[in-house]
Amino acid sequence: MDSACNVLCLNHGSSSLKFALYDMQRGDELRVAEGAAEGIGLPTRRFWLRGSKGETLIDRSVESGTLEAAVAAMSQALGEHGFRRFSAVGHRVLHGGPDYMSPQKVTPQLILALSRCVPFAPLHLPGQLEVIRTITTHYPDLPQVACFDTAFHRRIPEVAQRFSMPRFLWDEGIRRYGFHGLSFEFIVASLPPEAGSRMIIAHLGNGASMAAVLNGVPADTTMGLTPTGGMMMGTRSGDLDPGVLLYLMRQKHYDAAVLERMVDTESGLLGVSGLSSDMRTLLESSGTHPHAAQAVEMFSYQARKCIGALSAVLGGLDTLVFTGGIGEHASFVRSEICKGLKHLGIELNDERNSRHESIISVSGSPCTVRVIRTNEDLMIARHTRNVLESERPP
Amino acid sequence: MDSACNVLCLNHGSSSLKFALYDMQRGDELRVAEGAAEGIGLPTRRFWLRGSKGETLIDRSVESGTLEAAVAAMSQALGEHGFRRFSAVGHRVLHGGPDYMSPQKVTPQLILALSRCVPFAPLHLPGQLEVIRTITTHYPDLPQVACFDTAFHRRIPEVAQRFSMPRFLWDEGIRRYGFHGLSFEFIVASLPPEAGSRMIIAHLGNGASMAAVLNGVPADTTMGLTPTGGMMMGTRSGDLDPGVLLYLMRQKHYDAAVLERMVDTESGLLGVSGLSSDMRTLLESSGTHPHAAQAVEMFSYQARKCIGALSAVLGGLDTLVFTGGIGEHASFVRSEICKGLKHLGIELNDERNSRHESIISVSGSPCTVRVIRTNEDLMIARHTRNVLESERPP
Repeated sequence: MDSACNVLCLNHGSSSLKFALYDMQRGDELRVAEGAAEGIGLPTRRFWLRGSKGETLIDRSVESGTLEAAVAAMSQALGEHGFRRFSAVGHRVLHGGPDYMSPQKVTPQLILALSRCVPFAPLHLPGQLEVIRTITTHYPDLPQVACFDTAFHRRIPEVAQRFSMPRFLWDEGIRRYGFHGLSFEFIVASLPPEAGSRMIIAHLGNGASMAAVLNGVPADTTMGLTPTGGMMMGTRSGDLDPGVLLYLMRQKHYDAAVLERMVDTESGLLGVSGLSSDMRTLLESSGTHPHAAQAVEMFSYQARKCIGALSAVLGGLDTLVFTGGIGEHASFVRSEICKGLKHLGIELNDERNSRHESIISVSGSPCTVRVIRTNEDLMIARHTRNVLESERPP
Repeated sequence: MDSACNVLCLNHGSSSLKFALYDMQRGDELRVAEGAAEGIGLPTRRFWLRGSKGETLIDRSVESGTLEAAVAAMSQALGEHGFRRFSAVGHRVLHGGPDYMSPQKVTPQLILALSRCVPFAPLHLPGQLEVIRTITTHYPDLPQVACFDTAFHRRIPEVAQRFSMPRFLWDEGIRRYGFHGLSFEFIVASLPPEAGSRMIIAHLGNGASMAAVLNGVPADTTMGLTPTGGMMMGTRSGDLDPGVLLYLMRQKHYDAAVLERMVDTESGLLGVSGLSSDMRTLLESSGTHPHAAQAVEMFSYQARKCIGALSAVLGGLDTLVFTGGIGEHASFVRSEICKGLKHLGIELNDERNSRHESIISVSGSPCTVRVIRTNEDLMIARHTRNVLESERPP
């Protein structure tokens, strides 16, 4: 199947390349295929492809574990199933630095500019730039669009973006960027007009952050310069008293690499539970494993405080949206988070919540609480189509 | 004047030894003298003593700048003005570690235990231990009591004390201790019974933190392992995305000493304004100096978010108390902080606020907002008397 507007969306994580192919010609924005090369750089590797109805087309282990091989496998697999030509490639890019407030067409200038942002996102950006270069080699004539997870937040007022540190750091680009922007953007676009002017979106997954949106404009967010900041996550600590890191540097002689490993991969739900970073595992174990229960309790507690803090930014709350893996599926966590938030007009209907209904608050409660499935790939596809359409002569 | 219960309260900061002498025999807890040796270890040094009505008794520059000399000067000055004998000395001690939930009589065992807490408070605790040792030398028979700024918070639930980091750190004592405990305790004791069950106390001075108190019991606080954490302060950053520190370590090769100097002495109001850490200076300059205005705006904004977060812990708010230098005197800052908090029942009466009245909220507003002058010295004097009285045979 070839189409006049087939957008290939790429999402490169620490050890995987996920992709989704969207037919954006039709009004229904149809996902015609999706897949992933998993385990890049790791001993166990897997490649899978599914069709438009979620049916498995390919699922196999693969030999070569390079990014180059992953792109080749994706290209071959899509070709084998009739997807030979794409109109464009849209990339999820973690960090766009201070200047990019919107998705950008990939040019040599853009790549140069993003290379300068690598110190802000040393774990993610180098790999994502490599994906862009690899695609350029494979498909030299294919237009590519970079969609930044930070772009959504660039309209946050400076008072909320600025860290309370010496001014020269801001001038160097050290500020609260915020992430999960494609998800937040998707949710804002999904909401009906009656959602009201004061809104918090809680994207709770392995990474977790919240955005405050006032009259459709981003007002504040929990994450900071990097995705390590903000609230407790699967394996990340969130914001910390700097004195904790100074203690670890002085007393334990931790260097940047050890500290980074601890706050990024050994903290959060995993660190507190000592068991798992996966909320499902923790919920299943919490009856018998008190540390698992404590991790869930802390996660919910910190999320509740974030909702309180962001409500103070908005002057109250009309809509609270849960999204992301935990937000969409963990009714117990949603219920724990919302406990004691009646003063913000939040009151859940237990039955609706347990059924993950689109509205889970009590009818008539001042704040409507919603569950919305996010779709960052579709947001990438939309952005990519829009950027390319804006280039066409009218 | 000698009295049966004269308590000398000592408060050793980074470069000063402040003292106050309280006659605790009478019901009115009379402060009969106060003074300070300032500039310890610095080139410019000053010693002053005031009487019970605030009248200056001594104000002079001094030659020797050691702690030993400061104690000798205090002792001599008090003696010259008739205060020759004390019943006890009460010390303000920044950090009591995980075990001390209340003030403690100074014993060799206590000093040993506190020496083990020095890594938690390397800037403050060594000097405060030295004060205790110097007093022991000067007054070998005088009972001494250590009053910890952390003790008040030890009843905070573990879910709020624990950092979302690996469990072994908690076992080593790495947790949210919270500070300003003597101030919070004084405020709680000052409030009338009608203050309600859900209370936030905002101690806003050069150091700034808030405490949430539920039914008289501490529920949470903003500061962490050290007084660097929490909200923006005069020169301290408050909590940060750990990624910011990792960036500075990697890109700028900052070590612990440089990082500590930045987050403790070059950040906060001073860092953002580029002008001063003093709120009075910033308020005076904010008309002509936009960075000063921005620093005030950020401070107010962050305080507002903290009130929102702690209200979520309490399930709403009955009483908000402002105290500390900024909290007691900066009506503009109080008004900025409370802007947009009507959803928490907070509404200020501008006239009452400008006059720093004891209640500054609108009559009948759901949350009563109060201004209360804190008195940590008196809290030390009370604790010291109580610890010694509890030792007496009935």
